[in-house]
Amino acid sequence: MPSTSPSPKGKVLVLGAGNFGSCLADHLGDSEHEVFMWSREKSLVEYFNEHHKNPQYLKGHCFPRTVCAVGPDLPEAEFIKRMDVLLFAIPTQGLRVLLTKLRPSLDEANPPLLIFVNKGIETDTNALTLEIIADTCGKDIARVSTFLSGPSFATEIIRRQPTMVSIASLSEDHAEKASHVFHQPWFRCYRGDDPIGLELAGALKNVYAIASGMSEGLGFENNTRASLITRGLSEMTRIGVAYGANPLTFLSLAGVGDLFLTCSSSTSRNYTVGFRLGRGETLEEVLQTLGSVAEGVTTTKGLKAIVDELEVPAPIATAVYEALYEGRNVREQAQALLELPMVKELDLPRKSGAPARALMRKLGIEEV
Amino acid sequence: MPSTSPSPKGKVLVLGAGNFGSCLADHLGDSEHEVFMWSREKSLVEYFNEHHKNPQYLKGHCFPRTVCAVGPDLPEAEFIKRMDVLLFAIPTQGLRVLLTKLRPSLDEANPPLLIFVNKGIETDTNALTLEIIADTCGKDIARVSTFLSGPSFATEIIRRQPTMVSIASLSEDHAEKASHVFHQPWFRCYRGDDPIGLELAGALKNVYAIASGMSEGLGFENNTRASLITRGLSEMTRIGVAYGANPLTFLSLAGVGDLFLTCSSSTSRNYTVGFRLGRGETLEEVLQTLGSVAEGVTTTKGLKAIVDELEVPAPIATAVYEALYEGRNVREQAQALLELPMVKELDLPRKSGAPARALMRKLGIEEV
Repeated sequence: MPSTSPSPKGKVLVLGAGNFGSCLADHLGDSEHEVFMWSREKSLVEYFNEHHKNPQYLKGHCFPRTVCAVGPDLPEAEFIKRMDVLLFAIPTQGLRVLLTKLRPSLDEANPPLLIFVNKGIETDTNALTLEIIADTCGKDIARVSTFLSGPSFATEIIRRQPTMVSIASLSEDHAEKASHVFHQPWFRCYRGDDPIGLELAGALKNVYAIASGMSEGLGFENNTRASLITRGLSEMTRIGVAYGANPLTFLSLAGVGDLFLTCSSSTSRNYTVGFRLGRGETLEEVLQTLGSVAEGVTTTKGLKAIVDELEVPAPIATAVYEALYEGRNVREQAQALLELPMVKELDLPRKSGAPARALMRKLGIEEV
Repeated sequence: MPSTSPSPKGKVLVLGAGNFGSCLADHLGDSEHEVFMWSREKSLVEYFNEHHKNPQYLKGHCFPRTVCAVGPDLPEAEFIKRMDVLLFAIPTQGLRVLLTKLRPSLDEANPPLLIFVNKGIETDTNALTLEIIADTCGKDIARVSTFLSGPSFATEIIRRQPTMVSIASLSEDHAEKASHVFHQPWFRCYRGDDPIGLELAGALKNVYAIASGMSEGLGFENNTRASLITRGLSEMTRIGVAYGANPLTFLSLAGVGDLFLTCSSSTSRNYTVGFRLGRGETLEEVLQTLGSVAEGVTTTKGLKAIVDELEVPAPIATAVYEALYEGRNVREQAQALLELPMVKELDLPRKSGAPARALMRKLGIEEV
């Protein structure tokens, strides 16, 4: 089936060959872009180009011939300057180093379209990706960077299961350009102008996915899960507003859409961590057999620092933090949450927005 | 386990002995209120009082001795005047007649606390319950009426599975009183001041549950379901704002919480209607074997009239309407939705609120 997109086709370099990077490379190749997928692993690059399969992710899936692997070295400046789009699909924790290396290859007057799909908060600095970009590539590049997020299992994207995502940027023009790169009937893009809200939603949802897993592990059922997800969304929104995001961003595909998918999927790593803790295992036991750390475990620590700094009530995130890092009993934590005093629903903080204002100043934007 | 609620216990008359009325009667009896549950069916009343079981709903469950059935006649004025709370748990379509009959028994200067848990739009008039109350009992009673809604399967409530609901009223004082009637650690109440938004969310969600079932029936998977629910929420919010509700109400337990529960439950009647239409059955075939009409099927018609009147874009609700009432093919409708032009996410209407303003005028409230 030919692509039905009317957008001009371009050269895309996908940085990262993990699960999500691979499926987006596949989608873009399927949409007749010329796609290069960078991996640091020589064996992956060679295997991919010989077999058109990723040996580690989406195993067995045959990628279109429009996707070519490059690496293990980071492509040269000349190569990068030929790209129309750079798509960043590496973990947040590696982004500062990668962007620092890439910076000299970017033509600041005429940069490629930069699209970021990583989710998370940088450890130690608690920075969002928008801030990491400003720090490493300067404010002009940060102001036109775009962010993609939404409910999107990779294994469904490669089968053209209809998927919808949010794409946000401080530049409406660039959000629209990025949407045109991806948009297909089976991959619909919805534009927004609140990248801070989009990033916070994408990072924070993993904390609430742990909570949702805990609830299931404790034996709670559908009413409790739906309530917990909703109160988690309410808490995310409150934190977002205190940070300086638009509360309505949490109603978006990147907000409630992704939260819903992550919290109702027993295959999610974050959910699994919570589920096993709810069943009575210790974090040490869970992490030993899980292989690697689930992103939400790291994000919980960063989130705790943020809510303490902002002095915003976040009882669910705090309970997850105490269960993960202070060895508190999950069942007792749940009982304590249920016994909190009655409150108004959706009580948004009045004084708010200091972190976003600070970030906007860094970007040379005084008015938010 | 004794109740831990500090609230004063009172006499509650539950009007309706269906699935939800019964489980709330059970919860209130379990919370040591003195509960009377009215049914029009003599045999149900007699069976209940002999066996402490409802012969038709929540079968097998043993109700606390604090719950007593009354009926089949509507209780006398003297009885009603002794009640602290009237809880309305009958279908929206029967409410106007019931309230008209009850009106002479209500002491307007000192009415009992009125709590409504029905969801739906009145056929023919397209009125919300708040308007039905104003029409039948006058504006003073409507202004202090309270509304309860949220993700709450009856079978889980009777097992004290933690459940959380929204309770809204134009009177903050009365929303708080109603919350105290229900609140327990295993049944948490969150107050709000937007009964119109709460009512719209509760009614409209059934239309999107049909859409979610259709998606599943067509073979679409998790990404699509999460996306559809989110775009449905966005559409509900747009309609709500055009009507005059607060967009943030759609982030509440009555909004996203109930939507999430209804759209992910294969046991919901609305979901089942959609699922079977998605599999290729006609509405006639579905309704023949379903026994009774699912509420969303009726609501879809009312919603279509409302969105036409408000001129607000509602492509998903329109597609459901056309599939139900114009015999359009569900797969073609889905494809048409996927091929709609790219749009901004969360584009709320600017001119809005006419229906809510009209309703507020009816209630003697000029400023919204």
